[in-house]
Amino acid sequence: MCDQLRWDYLSCAGHPKLHTPNIDALAARGVRFTRAYVQSPVCGASRMSFYTGRYVSSHGATWNGVPLKVGEMTLGDYLRPLGLRTALVGKTHMRADVEGMQRLGIDPNSIIGVRVAECGFDPYERDDGLHGVGPDGRYDPQNPRYNRYLNDKGYAGDNPWHDWANAAQGEGNALASGWAMRHASKPARVAEEDSETPYMTRRAMDFMTEAGDAPWCLHLSYIKPHWPYIAPAPYNDMYGAADVLPVVRSEDERREAHPVYRAFMDLRVSSTFARDEVRAEVIPVYMGLIKQIDDQLGHLFGFMQARGLMDNTLIVFTSDHGDYLGDHWMGEKDLFHEPSVKVPLIVCDPSAAADAARGTVCDALVEAIDLAPTFLQALGADPAEQSHRLEGRSLMPYLRGEAPAKWRRFAFSEYDCSILPVAAKLGIEPRNARLFMVTDGRWKYVHAVGFRPMLYDLENDPSEFNDLGADPAYEAERQRLGAALAEWGLRLSQRTTRSEKQMAGARGKSQRKGILIGVWDEADVAPELWSKYWGDAN
Amino acid sequence: MCDQLRWDYLSCAGHPKLHTPNIDALAARGVRFTRAYVQSPVCGASRMSFYTGRYVSSHGATWNGVPLKVGEMTLGDYLRPLGLRTALVGKTHMRADVEGMQRLGIDPNSIIGVRVAECGFDPYERDDGLHGVGPDGRYDPQNPRYNRYLNDKGYAGDNPWHDWANAAQGEGNALASGWAMRHASKPARVAEEDSETPYMTRRAMDFMTEAGDAPWCLHLSYIKPHWPYIAPAPYNDMYGAADVLPVVRSEDERREAHPVYRAFMDLRVSSTFARDEVRAEVIPVYMGLIKQIDDQLGHLFGFMQARGLMDNTLIVFTSDHGDYLGDHWMGEKDLFHEPSVKVPLIVCDPSAAADAARGTVCDALVEAIDLAPTFLQALGADPAEQSHRLEGRSLMPYLRGEAPAKWRRFAFSEYDCSILPVAAKLGIEPRNARLFMVTDGRWKYVHAVGFRPMLYDLENDPSEFNDLGADPAYEAERQRLGAALAEWGLRLSQRTTRSEKQMAGARGKSQRKGILIGVWDEADVAPELWSKYWGDAN
Repeated sequence: MCDQLRWDYLSCAGHPKLHTPNIDALAARGVRFTRAYVQSPVCGASRMSFYTGRYVSSHGATWNGVPLKVGEMTLGDYLRPLGLRTALVGKTHMRADVEGMQRLGIDPNSIIGVRVAECGFDPYERDDGLHGVGPDGRYDPQNPRYNRYLNDKGYAGDNPWHDWANAAQGEGNALASGWAMRHASKPARVAEEDSETPYMTRRAMDFMTEAGDAPWCLHLSYIKPHWPYIAPAPYNDMYGAADVLPVVRSEDERREAHPVYRAFMDLRVSSTFARDEVRAEVIPVYMGLIKQIDDQLGHLFGFMQARGLMDNTLIVFTSDHGDYLGDHWMGEKDLFHEPSVKVPLIVCDPSAAADAARGTVCDALVEAIDLAPTFLQALGADPAEQSHRLEGRSLMPYLRGEAPAKWRRFAFSEYDCSILPVAAKLGIEPRNARLFMVTDGRWKYVHAVGFRPMLYDLENDPSEFNDLGADPAYEAERQRLGAALAEWGLRLSQRTTRSEKQMAGARGKSQRKGILIGVWDEADVAPELWSKYWGDAN
Repeated sequence: MCDQLRWDYLSCAGHPKLHTPNIDALAARGVRFTRAYVQSPVCGASRMSFYTGRYVSSHGATWNGVPLKVGEMTLGDYLRPLGLRTALVGKTHMRADVEGMQRLGIDPNSIIGVRVAECGFDPYERDDGLHGVGPDGRYDPQNPRYNRYLNDKGYAGDNPWHDWANAAQGEGNALASGWAMRHASKPARVAEEDSETPYMTRRAMDFMTEAGDAPWCLHLSYIKPHWPYIAPAPYNDMYGAADVLPVVRSEDERREAHPVYRAFMDLRVSSTFARDEVRAEVIPVYMGLIKQIDDQLGHLFGFMQARGLMDNTLIVFTSDHGDYLGDHWMGEKDLFHEPSVKVPLIVCDPSAAADAARGTVCDALVEAIDLAPTFLQALGADPAEQSHRLEGRSLMPYLRGEAPAKWRRFAFSEYDCSILPVAAKLGIEPRNARLFMVTDGRWKYVHAVGFRPMLYDLENDPSEFNDLGADPAYEAERQRLGAALAEWGLRLSQRTTRSEKQMAGARGKSQRKGILIGVWDEADVAPELWSKYWGDAN
């Protein structure tokens, strides 16, 4: 998993200037999904959906820093019983539910406690990748092993993550922090091999070496190309302003913006990315960071090939959300335009059964929550047995070139903006700062609680410039998509302690345990049901 | 709490034949709510909503026997930190999430484990009150203390709960089981003082005596007037066929029934209660069981009065759902007509602040989930602090004769019929066997997933005979109530690890911990935010 990688910044997805041969080769060996949506265009919430296989309003960790409640099952809970060591190298952006653990007496130092606190993974190299420090202290209380690594390599200071890996050298020997985007194209102060992406790649190799022949699931989770946008040489100037794609935005968008969209456009990050000089400085580096990931994946795949692991490892390449990069007058992610909510998704299944589909491209509506059930099926388990918890669907049919009998007609995404200044500006209470997207592939409908909807025609307006949310001509489409959202809102998501099969299987069973409802006369039911209820009244 | 007590079977609620002076006296000292709805018309699901303060689709324990997932907070979790011993005498119909406890390493024998398994209560006398036994064994694996009590009193056998307390003596000395309703009016074989209601009342007194001066919350939870419908003398024949109210049903209901309603009408319990002889036999006993509860509450209130407890104890009288008793061609509960989904609710607050409202009747739309926040407010805590978990609203304004600035416009109830043969008959998958009710007090709208809605006009058709769900004239009402249900379906119910205040309070905080998003130049933000990011690049 990459962080903040747009769906269209890969050569296999059509980027004309950015060449990603190793990722492309993976796509050639697997299936590339062109309509893969994340369940929320923000790191933490999106990832919790990947890990739990559940929509954001089902698992409840709606934004970065909102703890995933104790008891929500994650990949490790599903895969460990199947014999897989399930480990993490890199980022999760998961906050532990410390209060809940305390209430339930779960020792944070026990094996169970550590897993609960680490999103169900066995921590091998947890590093959420954002080691900012400010006047109120550290953003991430954990000092990463990576900082110690850098110190050991001679990169001095308390926080070499910033001072070396995410800063350049500015004018007159001054530190040029990567947090100021005007420095983006300057080379980071670390040697390329000591930057984050190669480091994490090596840690993944360490894990695979240590794991030996025992089966495993590894979540290799790169922080890049997420900000701070800064790359080590040679990736910092591998691309230039001439390689930057034209910005996708229209004046109409600004003129008649929906109030919620307007509030996001007014954020500092959006107005910054509305400037051409910013895009020209940042996007080439964003491309360089992706190129570096591709190169590192080349090394990793070579390493795996040499050990026979390419033949028995199902590989997924994806991202937790995209990056507007100035498109639609926006920076960051947070809203539901395609550059933000759609992600690259390549799945390569090594089994012979998948040979028929190798190199194919799939346009089906796919969601991040589909991966967990896909893994279960790949391991021979039946994801239907977990359908009371897992809300996604196994992608296995597509991986094997089969058309599933019935597939979803709608994909959904959500966003909780209660923690953003946007909510205050719009005058909405935290609990109502909720945005929802539903798309059927042709239309995209966005519901902001308390506001009129937004609507986009993805076929006739693929750039999503024209918000048809207030146009009377599209009332029928709005009704239809609004109804789909309403039906989804009423879905069964919390009866997680009893499966479908258990519910159906319990029908009529209480009668055989002596619960006889609506019986007038003993003759109304079989005599054996009375076996404990008759005899002499002595 | 009573079990299966209809809202209208109390003299204070207008029953002309059944006199309940002790409950009436409580109403005269408190506030009686005339529109109190349960969150599901079935024991377990309804109770989990009372205990968690959350809708059924939020807590997920959708039917009897569906475990309440580990981590769902209940009354004990809210009240214990305020210094209250929170205990149970009687029924909860809660199933422990054994699998979840095991996954999280929670020892079922630890204090936390016992509480988790007992719905958050300290078990003082747990007795779910249904000790049926059949060819497949016991319905409730726990053998209740009550059975040992009966044995000690000389009532012999393995299951005196059935053989003595819930059976009569039939023809020729044969046991006449209370499970066959034709025996309803025969006297149960126990002495009145040894029947369930007086026994549990004494256990409540035991608890109060033992608790002493330390503050407590006691959930005294009677199994009666729930079936088996059988009462000890003299309550078995205190009322007769002449005291039975006319049945509330119409031929139109049967002729043009909605398919879901039709499927419930076709259940054995419904066709049994459609017979006049059944109603004539059962309803007088149902009334007797209520009369016995009233008498026992008289004793209990006297006991409390003598110990000064009436002056410092907030008392709630309610039920988990009603009983059709043949109305609408139905037996049991399960659907949303008023006899099933509406319950008696009387709240008596002893504080002087409540004097203004004593003896008043309140017609506001009230839900079972309102009790938990009411208790918090009564104890001086602010329920708004828990609004990320508690979905109800404190009734305190009504208890004190104040009109809240803003009150809910809709009440909701739900029903999961996946475990009933009804679902199979209707050909619906377990996960879609979901029914929803929304009412604004004037209209009642019922949504069965996959079917047309039902609609009742409670003002012009208070008996709910005319289903307007397919009548074109009422499309606007259906749209309006359907939209309210859709909005409710999209409510925020699972972000339980962060409060409203925490979300709003976190706005802009990450910047002060070194996360600088969308910054082009160091001059774009305050210099102090750069304090850790500048200096010499050495």
